[in-house]
Amino acid sequence: MSQVVVLTGGVGGAKLVLGLSQILSADSLTAIVNTGDDFRHLGLHVSPDIDTLLYTLAGKANAAQGWGREGESWAFMAALRELGGPDWFALGDGDMALHVWRSYLLAQGQSLSQVTASFAARWGIATRILPMSDQPVATMLETDRGRLEFQRYFVEQRCEPTVRSILFEGAAQAAPAPGVVDAILSADSILIAPSNPFLSVDPLLAVPALRSALQQTAAPIVAVSPLIGGKAVKGPTAKLMGELNMAVDNDSIARHYTGLIDAMLIDSGDRCDAPDIAIAHCATLMTTLSDKMRVAQAAIDLAGGLRA
Amino acid sequence: MSQVVVLTGGVGGAKLVLGLSQILSADSLTAIVNTGDDFRHLGLHVSPDIDTLLYTLAGKANAAQGWGREGESWAFMAALRELGGPDWFALGDGDMALHVWRSYLLAQGQSLSQVTASFAARWGIATRILPMSDQPVATMLETDRGRLEFQRYFVEQRCEPTVRSILFEGAAQAAPAPGVVDAILSADSILIAPSNPFLSVDPLLAVPALRSALQQTAAPIVAVSPLIGGKAVKGPTAKLMGELNMAVDNDSIARHYTGLIDAMLIDSGDRCDAPDIAIAHCATLMTTLSDKMRVAQAAIDLAGGLRA
Repeated sequence: MSQVVVLTGGVGGAKLVLGLSQILSADSLTAIVNTGDDFRHLGLHVSPDIDTLLYTLAGKANAAQGWGREGESWAFMAALRELGGPDWFALGDGDMALHVWRSYLLAQGQSLSQVTASFAARWGIATRILPMSDQPVATMLETDRGRLEFQRYFVEQRCEPTVRSILFEGAAQAAPAPGVVDAILSADSILIAPSNPFLSVDPLLAVPALRSALQQTAAPIVAVSPLIGGKAVKGPTAKLMGELNMAVDNDSIARHYTGLIDAMLIDSGDRCDAPDIAIAHCATLMTTLSDKMRVAQAAIDLAGGLRA
Repeated sequence: MSQVVVLTGGVGGAKLVLGLSQILSADSLTAIVNTGDDFRHLGLHVSPDIDTLLYTLAGKANAAQGWGREGESWAFMAALRELGGPDWFALGDGDMALHVWRSYLLAQGQSLSQVTASFAARWGIATRILPMSDQPVATMLETDRGRLEFQRYFVEQRCEPTVRSILFEGAAQAAPAPGVVDAILSADSILIAPSNPFLSVDPLLAVPALRSALQQTAAPIVAVSPLIGGKAVKGPTAKLMGELNMAVDNDSIARHYTGLIDAMLIDSGDRCDAPDIAIAHCATLMTTLSDKMRVAQAAIDLAGGLRA
């Protein structure tokens, strides 16, 4: 059976993974997920991108909001605020179960991979979800307001600071989680989800053995561009590219992934003049489930064409 | 100003403390609270008796249920159950804020006293609430089902096991929390709430310097009996007394507190023939707020009479 690996961050990436999960058979899809956004909050281990993927694939995601659980309640936050606790990071009542139970299991000696697999199994998710690493990697931003942890930049400061550079603390020492390298080396197609290349995909690429596996694999690597008409669908990708002195276009995305990708899927109305990679077009905005399946199929087809 | 100290456990004790708080001026009441029920659950520090007191005095207690918060929601527990987490100990969504924020502050190096004082201040509680100790003391029960932590016995096994003996791990090494000894030594009256003498009051008495202060203080010590007509209003007091081979009556309660108390307040229809202590009667069932104020006033009056 044809094996597909997708490298992904949170929201945007989860849409592609959901599309893939609908068109591929259950045991042929592996998502390798960014954990550079993970952080400790109130003493709890929070894994935003893994949780977004879990919620999305379990049909529990709040689609309108773009993060968290459908039908969430907020009694915990209200009570925490009353007690003078920090309220810049919103933790829903149901969402808390993941953070508390995961933190407990990690403290008992389980790995993030094991915890993630057990949550996915509980929720009947067939797609294999692998954290990029079981060791801590922390995405840090050097900004005009000083060095910020990812969530402080992204949530607390709403991506307002001007970013000068991005680093991934711990990445150089981090090993890929069990199964990650094998999945990459035995994949028939590797996709890079339309997640933020700098904040959500780069942390994965900063794990040395994960990057080596990508360079070593025979499978074609296809990126789905996060840009449509020179804008990001959501999040700070475009703002960040400007701050990092890049033109906000697909050429810049292709250049960023130079030497790594074989092809890029871009929106129907867009162009990419990057040399040495194949380009395919498709309407890449993913709103409905059928949008997600269309983009997933186009990415799979692009990879398949490269293998042929 | 006349200073009153009350030694208390959770539910029953909190009723008396609420009554006292209504009839005494704000800065004349100190509650010293059992922490033998405290335990770590899901990695969180849970302080059931302190929380019951906080909720009761802040007007947030669920009176019908007898524990937890009024208007509580249960999304956390539902999600935890879905993930395969333990559900024998019910943690409400709002309640979680206390456990998570307290655990975080304790991990940052604050003491349980400091955390308790900050929560009380946030909720505008004037009564001083002091944990009996900032060090861990764990009430353990030797039962026909083996040795059980208090919450396992009380909540998970609903007090069903037959108790052979009770011990307070850590008590011998525990120091009273800051302010406890001073409050006892400078009190004009000391009350023992109608909490379970064996499970809720004995842990306090097992802290050596706390017990010494009670023996040393000039203030009269008045216990409010937890029995009415040979039955406990709530909880396992009567069952436990039988298992510990005591008659379920006020004489047994008085004997248990021998050498410690000067007087006991018992229900109007009851008697106590214990020698050497004063006895007063009052309708001790506390349902309404005016019940609580009546019992509080009767206990204060009994102590006052002993001082005169």
